[in-house]
Amino acid sequence: MPETARQIADDLRARIESGELVPGDRLPGEPSLVKTYGVAKMTANQALKILVSEGLAVARPGSGTYVREFKPIRRVANDRLSKSRRDAGQSIWSADVAQRALVTDVQVYEAEAPRQIGRLLNLGPGAAVIVRSRKFVVEDRPVQIATSYLPADLVRETAIAQPNTGPGGSYARLAELGAEPVAFSEELRARMPSEEERTALNLAAGTPVLEICRTAYTEDERPVEVNQMLLDAGSYVLEYRLSS
Amino acid sequence: MPETARQIADDLRARIESGELVPGDRLPGEPSLVKTYGVAKMTANQALKILVSEGLAVARPGSGTYVREFKPIRRVANDRLSKSRRDAGQSIWSADVAQRALVTDVQVYEAEAPRQIGRLLNLGPGAAVIVRSRKFVVEDRPVQIATSYLPADLVRETAIAQPNTGPGGSYARLAELGAEPVAFSEELRARMPSEEERTALNLAAGTPVLEICRTAYTEDERPVEVNQMLLDAGSYVLEYRLSS
Repeated sequence: MPETARQIADDLRARIESGELVPGDRLPGEPSLVKTYGVAKMTANQALKILVSEGLAVARPGSGTYVREFKPIRRVANDRLSKSRRDAGQSIWSADVAQRALVTDVQVYEAEAPRQIGRLLNLGPGAAVIVRSRKFVVEDRPVQIATSYLPADLVRETAIAQPNTGPGGSYARLAELGAEPVAFSEELRARMPSEEERTALNLAAGTPVLEICRTAYTEDERPVEVNQMLLDAGSYVLEYRLSS
Repeated sequence: MPETARQIADDLRARIESGELVPGDRLPGEPSLVKTYGVAKMTANQALKILVSEGLAVARPGSGTYVREFKPIRRVANDRLSKSRRDAGQSIWSADVAQRALVTDVQVYEAEAPRQIGRLLNLGPGAAVIVRSRKFVVEDRPVQIATSYLPADLVRETAIAQPNTGPGGSYARLAELGAEPVAFSEELRARMPSEEERTALNLAAGTPVLEICRTAYTEDERPVEVNQMLLDAGSYVLEYRLSS
């Protein structure tokens, strides 16, 4: 990556951040950048790709590169996990995207727990889990893939083993089983996606992902769910509220 | 990026994850990959770079590419902000890296608050802040740049305006001023770094950064500090503990 591509990207970014270029505006195209900066067409192309990888711009093939209109999803961990929200019959996900998200590709099946998941759930070797995987789509963009694992012995006969978990979602069902999740640990990291992940989330080349692994515990500290989430980093701002 | 480079990277990643290749091992070099996969030298090079960008491998110029030995830093937000830790005279940072981190490039100065910072701190236009910036280095690697902003009217005459803030750090000093931080909000996102950030953290090309903006509030909900942190994503696992 030539330095000049980064510099051109820095200039364009500054114009977006200052408000000179607003969401929906078309960025200068390759010919215009070639002329303004005296660079090769490939360098101009790389500069635009940098802004796409940062989530600031979107490329529309055959038309140009535009300042992104998509507003990042604000994921507030604390709101998502509050009991009052569940009692009102909303699922966890509804906290951040409200009416915006479509859940697709729901798959529910029983399987042997992957080793790391079994360890997090305190299960013996070879124990079974109910796996729930789904994709979240906002404004026609896939933004997250989530895969939950719950002990099969606990939830096999419940709505958690069905595609539709009913009002309040899995956590409301767990509460009915006397296994209400009340404490959570979220581990997260950012990295470049694998090829398979890049395809599944339809990511522009050079866009990182956020990986979140959440474990849910009952009052007596029993782990009852592990949820592995993979987020398009360009689509999310995460928020955590803490007290000392 | 040719698909084959990604496929070779997937193969090597699988060998690292299975434990066949362990930390410190030398990965197959370009000539070996060229021979095994029948690809161009450039493709082999790109495959190795993918693993570097994912934080799984490190390149040693003139020697080869090795499975990374550096253990990710576990940053547990809740531990870091606990009062008992401060009372014991430890700074926030000591929670995650213990004796491992060196603080370098400390700069402390007074300046006009950047607009967004002024807004987060509820300051009027043109108000002054004390800015504290520093870099954290672990095992000779820069892993984080942190810049704190505190209202100048509150902290100008205290150790917070000095390079060494004394036992317990800035938060202990704020407590002495009757402005003890007790609630925190952390907003975070992942993205590719700017050229300047990439240089400052000495990141391999294609390595993302985690950006965390933490605001600290007193009991009466007054914001007293904003800390903007930029983390080498390959060096960190973040952990948050929550309850419903």
